Amino acid sequence: MGTRLGELVERFGGRLEGDPDIEVTAVTPLDRAGASDISFLSNSKLRALAARSHAAALILSPADEPEVAASFAGARIVTANPYAYFARAAQYFAQFVDAARLPSPEPGIHPTAAVHATAQVDPTAHIGPHVTVEAGAAIKGGAVVDAGCYIGREAVIGEGTRLFANVTFHARCIIGARGIIHSGAVIGGDGFGFAQEGGVYIKIPQTGRVVIGDDVDIGSNTTVDRGALDDTVIEDGVKLDNQIQIGHNCHIGAHTAMAGCVGVAGSARIGRHCTFGGAAMINGHIEIVDNVHVTAATMVPNSITEPGRYTGYFPVARNADWERVAVLVRNLTSMREKVRALEKAVKALAGDK
Amino acid sequence: MGTRLGELVERFGGRLEGDPDIEVTAVTPLDRAGASDISFLSNSKLRALAARSHAAALILSPADEPEVAASFAGARIVTANPYAYFARAAQYFAQFVDAARLPSPEPGIHPTAAVHATAQVDPTAHIGPHVTVEAGAAIKGGAVVDAGCYIGREAVIGEGTRLFANVTFHARCIIGARGIIHSGAVIGGDGFGFAQEGGVYIKIPQTGRVVIGDDVDIGSNTTVDRGALDDTVIEDGVKLDNQIQIGHNCHIGAHTAMAGCVGVAGSARIGRHCTFGGAAMINGHIEIVDNVHVTAATMVPNSITEPGRYTGYFPVARNADWERVAVLVRNLTSMREKVRALEKAVKALAGDK
Amino acid sequence: MGTRLGELVERFGGRLEGDPDIEVTAVTPLDRAGASDISFLSNSKLRALAARSHAAALILSPADEPEVAASFAGARIVTANPYAYFARAAQYFAQFVDAARLPSPEPGIHPTAAVHATAQVDPTAHIGPHVTVEAGAAIKGGAVVDAGCYIGREAVIGEGTRLFANVTFHARCIIGARGIIHSGAVIGGDGFGFAQEGGVYIKIPQTGRVVIGDDVDIGSNTTVDRGALDDTVIEDGVKLDNQIQIGHNCHIGAHTAMAGCVGVAGSARIGRHCTFGGAAMINGHIEIVDNVHVTAATMVPNSITEPGRYTGYFPVARNADWERVAVLVRNLTSMREKVRALEKAVKALAGDK
Repeated sequence: MGTRLGELVERFGGRLEGDPDIEVTAVTPLDRAGASDISFLSNSKLRALAARSHAAALILSPADEPEVAASFAGARIVTANPYAYFARAAQYFAQFVDAARLPSPEPGIHPTAAVHATAQVDPTAHIGPHVTVEAGAAIKGGAVVDAGCYIGREAVIGEGTRLFANVTFHARCIIGARGIIHSGAVIGGDGFGFAQEGGVYIKIPQTGRVVIGDDVDIGSNTTVDRGALDDTVIEDGVKLDNQIQIGHNCHIGAHTAMAGCVGVAGSARIGRHCTFGGAAMINGHIEIVDNVHVTAATMVPNSITEPGRYTGYFPVARNADWERVAVLVRNLTSMREKVRALEKAVKALAGDK
Repeated sequence: MGTRLGELVERFGGRLEGDPDIEVTAVTPLDRAGASDISFLSNSKLRALAARSHAAALILSPADEPEVAASFAGARIVTANPYAYFARAAQYFAQFVDAARLPSPEPGIHPTAAVHATAQVDPTAHIGPHVTVEAGAAIKGGAVVDAGCYIGREAVIGEGTRLFANVTFHARCIIGARGIIHSGAVIGGDGFGFAQEGGVYIKIPQTGRVVIGDDVDIGSNTTVDRGALDDTVIEDGVKLDNQIQIGHNCHIGAHTAMAGCVGVAGSARIGRHCTFGGAAMINGHIEIVDNVHVTAATMVPNSITEPGRYTGYFPVARNADWERVAVLVRNLTSMREKVRALEKAVKALAGDK
Repeated sequence: MGTRLGELVERFGGRLEGDPDIEVTAVTPLDRAGASDISFLSNSKLRALAARSHAAALILSPADEPEVAASFAGARIVTANPYAYFARAAQYFAQFVDAARLPSPEPGIHPTAAVHATAQVDPTAHIGPHVTVEAGAAIKGGAVVDAGCYIGREAVIGEGTRLFANVTFHARCIIGARGIIHSGAVIGGDGFGFAQEGGVYIKIPQTGRVVIGDDVDIGSNTTVDRGALDDTVIEDGVKLDNQIQIGHNCHIGAHTAMAGCVGVAGSARIGRHCTFGGAAMINGHIEIVDNVHVTAATMVPNSITEPGRYTGYFPVARNADWERVAVLVRNLTSMREKVRALEKAVKALAGDK
């Protein structure tokens, strides 16, 4: 019932130190792993814990191997990126788990879903309970993947795009292959566009679409608005956590990831391979280049033109300390005046001599 | 199949410079407009782009007209508020678009919706898939509007209030005419009210309602809680973007707009014609007067008694710079002490002389 | 049709000053209460208002009783915690209100809900319209409560756990007795877990559960992610407002409350009896001890090891003032240099003398 270590290495690579006929059935954390488990060491600080593990085998890096090998009795799979190896192995073992143990992943359309007759849904896609797919929308399926394939994202073998319960996928929007849209997400609601006249708002029809690439994950209750005239675009491999808001006409570059509660205002253009910590807020109509990393709870009002990490939140403190500091922050202009006056006075005193 | 410029001007006003028999079929951005399109110039900085446009006609202001007319070959509709004119023209053309191209707007109740027998739903309203409308709730319809009417919001001709897919509209709540509630929004969930005793929370029943006026838009996954004893009130013309949270017993004044991710704590009372940038946070039990504009990512802890723009977020910087600044902010008390000591020392030195 | 004050005192305790045969039918705010209402005074500042109230009876504290008794003509129930007494009395009267007036609370599964055959739903639980309950999930019922019981939370007599409309309750998750999950909430969506390789994200299967204790309230559109390998845990009595995001593997201690829009990143461990103001953001992999109170809009990047109130948001100001202050904050390093230079100069001047 288990999988031979030899087969794992054939599938996912790595150098095996130990008996290829040892069988394992699950990937398990170091401290809980037992005789039928494989575990992993993704952080050198845990070497001692790894050495004491009861796992049948460990996934670890060449740097950690010598020290761990000295005391760990089981087999080792040595690989440059143990965490990525763990992810693939865990995906592999997940397919043997009773389907009932994970959110329903079977292909097909749940009888309670409302899928418009003109929507195109690939037969490998999964459409969960109470999902709504509107007219002209397109849900693509999974690519056919060779059984022995182990490269990157294609390791999720043969799975089509999945829309979990209560997702709303509005008219004419598109999502590519191997995507996941978690429950309650809304794709293609109207953008927030109004003209103002005499203090009253006049709605601007939102006639663009949302176009989502391949291998995109969208979290629970996240919202992505359709474009006003042009489209909102989410490129391949983007990962959005829960409760994120993406405004109309945004463009999110490939392999960018955003943690929960991030907000991106309309027409922002974000590069590739960026990361955004939770509740980061991105202003509209700005541009962020590739490889920018924004810390959680940071407001980005203007474009960022150079890669790097950017931060901007008020440091937390005991409330009484914060209150003192907040008063001083409010009055910084007065402190600057005092410093200027001092500079003048000292200059005068020095000149006097 | 197009609409004559002459007819547009009859409907929506403005002064036409050019042939009234030219026909246009869509409103299109300056850079993409072609021979059957009308475009608009809402920002004088784009005059040069407008002059080169291939549009059949342009909507522009009297101030922009002379310069653009000198080089632009097509017709012009001159009006004081080109952006509002664009919004109305776009609404007008949207009605000719294949219904399948926009989120489903037809009147009627989708067969998958669960509408309680005691709820009142106007026959012109649209209730989308998987919407829930509970007992005693009221969804009003659209006003009857003259065919020739072009004034303000009524330009959305004959449309009833629409609840898109997966909306939950709880018992006894009310929404007026011409409103839109986008997918996943929850109107009338319980407010967050508890008494505490011995460290344990005791729920306070939330028996008020949510009462929403006419011409209100509520964004995807936005939540508006019912009042505790009294009602939560959203006045006419309020526009709420996605993922907004409005606590129980709040009162939002007419024609106030909030961008995505704003949070308003319970019993806040907000004036008319206010605007709130994304993720602004408003404390409970405070009052904000009319015409207040709060910048994105700003926390408002106390009442605001004078109109104007208010801001409060930490400026973003490269992470290393922010870390230095954050330490200095934490230690502002010590910097103030140093400045005070310097003031004393300088005074002493000056007195010595 | 009303309830005798004598019966209220038998149920909920307190000392009655006045006629036990007076009947009341509802709990009503001081300023609106009439001859068939009971009202409450939870804040001594409102003594004058209480004294003028037209209520048949008042709930108040021993400290407020003498002054109010001097002028208020009705009966009084004197109790140490009038607000908690009010909550219980309001719960009691709510049961007599027409069921249609409150969000549907009847036990049973709405015909539009999709409940998996293997899910366990207690017969006293309420499952609303379009709710999804996946395989292996467990929804527990209400405890049997003595008719005369008046202690704390059990005062919500005989009610089972309720899932309101459009809730998604994913596979294998568990919720205990007397819980409420408000509309649109998603329990047990995948956590946000990826390994990275060559700039591409590889999904880590999320095989843990969400385990929720008794007496837990979860607000509208709140999301609680399932654990990666272990479980996400919400202990007894936790109260979560709307639009909150709880990451995978978090542990929220008993009787902790969070206001709307709070975000908690993965693997955070939060103590008991904590409170979090709206939009507070908690970093992942940190620990917060019991009895910590975090102010709204505050980012907590590191562990908090001592009880108390913690705050960290930028003070709001008129925009022009904020802009000046923001420039000074950015340049605090330069101000510190100036202060240091002054200190040197003054020292030199003092030495010169």
